[in-house]
Amino acid sequence: MKSVTFQDIIAARKVVARFLKSTPLIHYPELSERLGFQAYIKHENHNPTGSFKVRGGLNFMHHLPQVQREKGVITATRGNHGQSIAYAAAQFEVKATVVVPHGNNPEKNSAMQAFGAELIEHGADFDEALVLCEKLRTERGLYYVHPCMEPALFHGVGTYSLEIFESLPHVDAIIVPIGGGSGSCGAITVSKAINPNVKIIGVQAENAPAIYRSWKAGHHIETDSCDTIADGLATRVPFPLPLSILQKGIHDMVLLSETEIADGIRSALRWTHNLAEGAGAAPLAAAHKLTTELAGKNVVMVMSGANLDTETLKKVLAYQL
Amino acid sequence: MKSVTFQDIIAARKVVARFLKSTPLIHYPELSERLGFQAYIKHENHNPTGSFKVRGGLNFMHHLPQVQREKGVITATRGNHGQSIAYAAAQFEVKATVVVPHGNNPEKNSAMQAFGAELIEHGADFDEALVLCEKLRTERGLYYVHPCMEPALFHGVGTYSLEIFESLPHVDAIIVPIGGGSGSCGAITVSKAINPNVKIIGVQAENAPAIYRSWKAGHHIETDSCDTIADGLATRVPFPLPLSILQKGIHDMVLLSETEIADGIRSALRWTHNLAEGAGAAPLAAAHKLTTELAGKNVVMVMSGANLDTETLKKVLAYQL
Repeated sequence: MKSVTFQDIIAARKVVARFLKSTPLIHYPELSERLGFQAYIKHENHNPTGSFKVRGGLNFMHHLPQVQREKGVITATRGNHGQSIAYAAAQFEVKATVVVPHGNNPEKNSAMQAFGAELIEHGADFDEALVLCEKLRTERGLYYVHPCMEPALFHGVGTYSLEIFESLPHVDAIIVPIGGGSGSCGAITVSKAINPNVKIIGVQAENAPAIYRSWKAGHHIETDSCDTIADGLATRVPFPLPLSILQKGIHDMVLLSETEIADGIRSALRWTHNLAEGAGAAPLAAAHKLTTELAGKNVVMVMSGANLDTETLKKVLAYQL
Repeated sequence: MKSVTFQDIIAARKVVARFLKSTPLIHYPELSERLGFQAYIKHENHNPTGSFKVRGGLNFMHHLPQVQREKGVITATRGNHGQSIAYAAAQFEVKATVVVPHGNNPEKNSAMQAFGAELIEHGADFDEALVLCEKLRTERGLYYVHPCMEPALFHGVGTYSLEIFESLPHVDAIIVPIGGGSGSCGAITVSKAINPNVKIIGVQAENAPAIYRSWKAGHHIETDSCDTIADGLATRVPFPLPLSILQKGIHDMVLLSETEIADGIRSALRWTHNLAEGAGAAPLAAAHKLTTELAGKNVVMVMSGANLDTETLKKVLAYQL
């Protein structure tokens, strides 16, 4: 299996830059005072799909052979991965089919459709959606874009870490949310190449700790559920590609309760005036638990995405979460 | 009085670009479907102070003579103008003093202080704060940065309109919120130079219609109050510099009720996943009233700022506004 190298990420930069501006890295003086370190946010929530994943989708589509582009691609998803693939497919004039389980967030569904994807609702949960996805892949000759095992996605996503080092050469630590693991693998790969002293700190949810547990144990561990408001962190099964990189490269990991994630969303609104989805706010929430270790350092928190639905936001602001 | 020319804005571009990346202009397919035109948002809310005004502050500070930089600057403000001056002053190592009335939003006060400004609370309202501002200007030899009469601020602010034309050469209409008028004057000046057929549409609040009434009447009209949740639109007194440009250059103006402004904030969250303050959401709210005129066009809505406090956001989401 192809892995993730610094060279791959450098190469992806040129592809991604054809479509996207680099996102801002903003220093927040008030947050810095409160946290006791220099607080910077990498605003991946400012991307056109509201999430970092679009970088991966674009790089993937660029490398997809023309013959396969003509047949189309398919994926199963509940959210940001699907928007990334739909957006990138539209840019390359590739037909994208996305299978979601019944009851999937209608805001996410309509966003994928608006980017031009064919949306199919099937099955009671993600695993059942995946079964149809497999079936259609075979029947229609589509390419299945696996969200966590497609190296080109990782290479594209890694470009945000490159931008972090360019904007802030003296970064000391980067806090990244870990769902599938592509963002954290990029941060690890880039920091190893540029400055291995930079600490890469991952964040997961207490309710979805598969990668955390696998990292602690040193081997693959799945969980039975992954029920968190942060859909971007909701991974039940770690995949070999990210796990192999994370095992060797992550310096620390933090687990967050659901209340802590909601606190992160509230903090993002209050201190940065940005709407962050649960995963996007997770690094900010985790930072509040790391003030001793990070005191005085230059710390980048990756706000990975903005795609929080209004109903959840209402609950967060009413402290029902 | 010096006015606002395209050449001034072009020159400001280089200054502003030393400090800020150009902000994204994002196309929103779902909004486009709903509104019946190609809906683009110019994300001035993504600036490091959360508002477009920082462009003006930076250009102003660049042109301030060194002897005056050493003495310092002062201004009276309730919000984004003060953050702009505080931020720009810090970049140029100039001491900034900001006078605010008692009871001013504490979130805005602490943001200005965090950027390094000396904050003085004085008086029951803005006019009383201004009296102290005048007094200190004389006593301390400070330069008073008037928010609506300082051409360098307008030139800096005009750079966002330049970026709009670069990103979307075939823009047909630009919808801008009008508070003091610097943003709209920039849009008018840039579009006159590049493509005079582009429609510039201003937005004001029904509760703060001084510029709207002055524009309709063709002469200066003040109002007794300007009580709107959109502080960025809360202007009671039109100033000659912007008014002279607006009189000749604006194509249409829309007035919004408080509920319509709140609807705009809700729309911004729902359809763009951005937190917009009232003024920042006003163009999106106004767009809903212009669907016939704008059908099929390429329309840019300027999301001028993000600085909405959490208490107001809660009320907006609970439909108390």
